[in-house]
This record gives sequence, structure tokens and C-alpha cells, in this order.
Amino acid sequence: MIGVVATLYVQPDKSAEFEKVFLDLAAKVKANESGCLMYQLTKSKTEAGVYKVLELYASADALKHHGGTDYFKAAGAAMGPTMAAAPNIEYLDAVE
Amino acid sequence: MIGVVATLYVQPDKSAEFEKVFLDLAAKVKANESGCLMYQLTKSKTEAGVYKVLELYASADALKHHGGTDYFKAAGAAMGPTMAAAPNIEYLDAVE
Repeated sequence: MIGVVATLYVQPDKSAEFEKVFLDLAAKVKANESGCLMYQLTKSKTEAGVYKVLELYASADALKHHGGTDYFKAAGAAMGPTMAAAPNIEYLDAVE
Repeated sequence: MIGVVATLYVQPDKSAEFEKVFLDLAAKVKANESGCLMYQLTKSKTEAGVYKVLELYASADALKHHGGTDYFKAAGAAMGPTMAAAPNIEYLDAVE
């Protein structure tokens, strides 16, 4: 399994717009990707506009498939204008 | 729901010992805590001895219960001698 912690920096006044787009994406991921075991949006308790997505994939193939879906690409384009800075994506090896 | 990213700094030459204790803890969490929705140990791909635990709880009560179990306290004590530095625990609000 592969873990991901994606930190997203959103313009605070565009948080509602960002959350709407992301939650729609998350619903599509859950409906379509059996290899995505978790895809949970969270937000910082202390820093406005800072979100972390906690992700877990069954395999490298599942992660690759996720990033290649049309709905992921569309959501990325829709979220772009709400971002304050480039995201920080950390890939992690699950220990089992 | 509440998310947690717990970063643990383990002495690299004690990684095997740490992983054994942690995986035993994780098995107990899965077996006993219905309010813990995820509890996944991962390790950095780039920094030896750096682990991140991706956690998700159904509620604040579930998180509190987790930290109060005898097996959590015992595992913490057993892992202590394998640590290189204090852990960094970040609590996050799930966005649903």
C-alpha cells in the first residue's frame, strides 16, 4: 500500500469554493476507485486555508490510475484558481 | 470526524523493533476501536527513521478513547526507547 499526505494551500476567501469542488471529486473517487482505500479531506485547526488530504492506495497502479482519471484532471483545473501556492505532495510507503 | 498525522522519529537502527511494537498496537486498535476509521503506519521514502501514522476517528470521543486504552499506553512505553526525538502530532478537522 501507498500513503499520501497532500497539503493544499487555498486562498482563505475561496475555501468554500475549493471545498465544494474537492468534495465532489472525493465522491467520484469513492464511487469509482476500489484501489483507493482512503481519500479524506481535512483542514488545519490553526492555519486558515491549509488543507491536508489523507490518502491510502492499495498499490502503485491504483495511485497511478487515480491521477489519470478525467474527473481528477477536471477537479485539478477547477481548483487551480482557488490555490494560494503550489501543493506539497508527500508519498509514503505503508508498513504492514 | 477528526484526522491525525503523527510523525514519529525513530532511531534508524531500532526501526525493526519499533515496527514490531507499532504493528501489534495497530492490530489491537483495529480489533477494539470501531470509532477509529483508519490507523495506518507509513514510512518516509527519503528520511530513514521517519514514520507517519495516518489516523481518522469518527469523533472526539473516539480519539480520546484511543489515547486512554491500556494497550496504547503500553505501546507508548515500549516504543519510547526506540525514538530519536519527540513526536509531532497534528490534529485536523475532517471536511465532509
